[in-house]
Amino acid sequence: MSPSAAHADVRIDDLETPMVAVDLGRVDRNIAALQAYCDEHGLANRPHIKTHKLPFVAHRQLAAGASGITVQKLGEAEVMIAAGIDDLLITYNVVGSAKAERLARIARMAKIQVGVDNRVALETVATAADRAQRDIGVLIEFESTKRRQGVHDPAEALALARLVENSPFLRFRGLMTYPSSPASVDWIDRARALFDDAGIAIETVSGGGTPSMWEAHEIAGLTEYRAGTYVYHDRKTVGAGVATFDDCALHVHATVVSAPSEDRVVIDAGSKSLTSDTVPPDVGSGYGRILEHAEAVIAELSEEHGVVDISACERRPSIGDRVRIVPNHVCPVSNLFDEVHLHRDGVFEAVVPVAARGKVR
Amino acid sequence: MSPSAAHADVRIDDLETPMVAVDLGRVDRNIAALQAYCDEHGLANRPHIKTHKLPFVAHRQLAAGASGITVQKLGEAEVMIAAGIDDLLITYNVVGSAKAERLARIARMAKIQVGVDNRVALETVATAADRAQRDIGVLIEFESTKRRQGVHDPAEALALARLVENSPFLRFRGLMTYPSSPASVDWIDRARALFDDAGIAIETVSGGGTPSMWEAHEIAGLTEYRAGTYVYHDRKTVGAGVATFDDCALHVHATVVSAPSEDRVVIDAGSKSLTSDTVPPDVGSGYGRILEHAEAVIAELSEEHGVVDISACERRPSIGDRVRIVPNHVCPVSNLFDEVHLHRDGVFEAVVPVAARGKVR
Repeated sequence: MSPSAAHADVRIDDLETPMVAVDLGRVDRNIAALQAYCDEHGLANRPHIKTHKLPFVAHRQLAAGASGITVQKLGEAEVMIAAGIDDLLITYNVVGSAKAERLARIARMAKIQVGVDNRVALETVATAADRAQRDIGVLIEFESTKRRQGVHDPAEALALARLVENSPFLRFRGLMTYPSSPASVDWIDRARALFDDAGIAIETVSGGGTPSMWEAHEIAGLTEYRAGTYVYHDRKTVGAGVATFDDCALHVHATVVSAPSEDRVVIDAGSKSLTSDTVPPDVGSGYGRILEHAEAVIAELSEEHGVVDISACERRPSIGDRVRIVPNHVCPVSNLFDEVHLHRDGVFEAVVPVAARGKVR
Repeated sequence: MSPSAAHADVRIDDLETPMVAVDLGRVDRNIAALQAYCDEHGLANRPHIKTHKLPFVAHRQLAAGASGITVQKLGEAEVMIAAGIDDLLITYNVVGSAKAERLARIARMAKIQVGVDNRVALETVATAADRAQRDIGVLIEFESTKRRQGVHDPAEALALARLVENSPFLRFRGLMTYPSSPASVDWIDRARALFDDAGIAIETVSGGGTPSMWEAHEIAGLTEYRAGTYVYHDRKTVGAGVATFDDCALHVHATVVSAPSEDRVVIDAGSKSLTSDTVPPDVGSGYGRILEHAEAVIAELSEEHGVVDISACERRPSIGDRVRIVPNHVCPVSNLFDEVHLHRDGVFEAVVPVAARGKVR
């Protein structure tokens, strides 16, 4: 038997649980679908790598036509730059001298843009650019529907943009928000009018979010889109109607390890495999969807136990059974596992380290 | 200046955020307090390492008098055995041939006991013991107040114990439950009577859980106690009344990175630093307690953003401020960080890898 025939014999279902299986065919299909959409509507595609945290997937996104990548933290940027990626947007306020030092170092290795919503963060970016003697692009973040961060008034954005212009190595590039929504259109219009009057060009207006990605072209004024979850999809994005379970590319594989009562079994995947993230009640209950038992509810999690309510199931799972779970929210699941197992149609292909896992700094 | 003087100059508060700071003085105090309690009441102390996942802390627990350690998964056992620990209880059903192979390997390196609640898991343990040609101890898990796993009827425990006796390398050691509670007493009494009649000795009755640890001596029949969280404590165990915030040894340090409105600031610690675990409403709201602003509520988490409601705060936090957070549930926080930073009274001592992090298999 040749080595390649032996390799083809290993099924993803033969590997020990709990584990994360990533379907490469679906990943490629998801990458192609969003790229085609962005191309059709003239949007730059700048996928967020927080979902997969895998350099080779980021390279596939770029090869498919992405204009660059998005990261949240400097540590993610460092991993991706080390893997040969040279155009990055950091959509996060970097604050303080330690961060300025790290930002300066990566600015000498790659084209960097940073999103900011306040002067302290802007000063950090300016310090980094001065130290690196390299241009760093700046986007001003504005708040959309999500009460998280971002300036509220276009005048605040203009004030920050004017500070950018005063700094020798900072380059004002435009505006960003998350998630973009129809409510963003009016804000963008008002900001454009204000910036036009001030003679400051807005090159980029960057929106994002997988749940609303297929409506991105309806947000007049957007030039760029940042989606992350689309590469894998999850119960939340299926619930939002932008994908089906057949598009879901990441599954947590688990094994039934106990069947203590008629209405309950226990699987070996708990919050350390699935996270405690929930979905809205209209999307479903419990901590993930078990594909083999759609009526089962992962009702409670300990760190290593998933307590499954099977009272609505026709077939009762047995101890030793393997199940595949679509997580509620796939991004933090990627952050729990040191490695993912890749397959095509169930044939195990490779195990790869989740290189940008745990990069919270 | 001598190197040690230079070392003394580094404060834990000078290190980049988000990060995990562990106060060694408090760890030692927490270890000593539970050991003294167990010694006083004649309970074997077998701490669960899932909370800290650090071999050096496990060794401190043993040095203080623990009879062995508890782990949940084989991967945790492998890490601890590699670090020189030789007496382990695995409180988890191990199921399947891959697990049997791994269990056999560690059974040749250390004294192993395994908790089971069903025949399939028991067969896995028996296969491992046969393969290793080494004794493996068996505890039968029974269900207490928590609807998770464990046999319900003492007769089921007896049936499993009889199977243990039929296997040449398995040794029946006794019973275990989690968490132990006053409701366990009656169950233990009935089981003891049944096993006495059958002529099978119960050496060990193992209970556990930090929230009820100071009442362990009131659970007649317990011989051993397994607590994990007590080594660090968290918002949940403070809420349960078994510790105070001054006992909490692990803090997530974060920085305010945005102040987008009067009633809200954003910190650089989100669900990737704090987890989405909640506490009961009577303990508090939000995703952790900010020590510097007790009235603040970490109201919402994204992966990297903590959105803090400061409407009840007298002092408004500023961008760049550092805050220390007691997590709701500390164990899964340990599982998010590749390393923790150790200090004594705020003086940085060392950074150590969280060696048993992510060992879900």
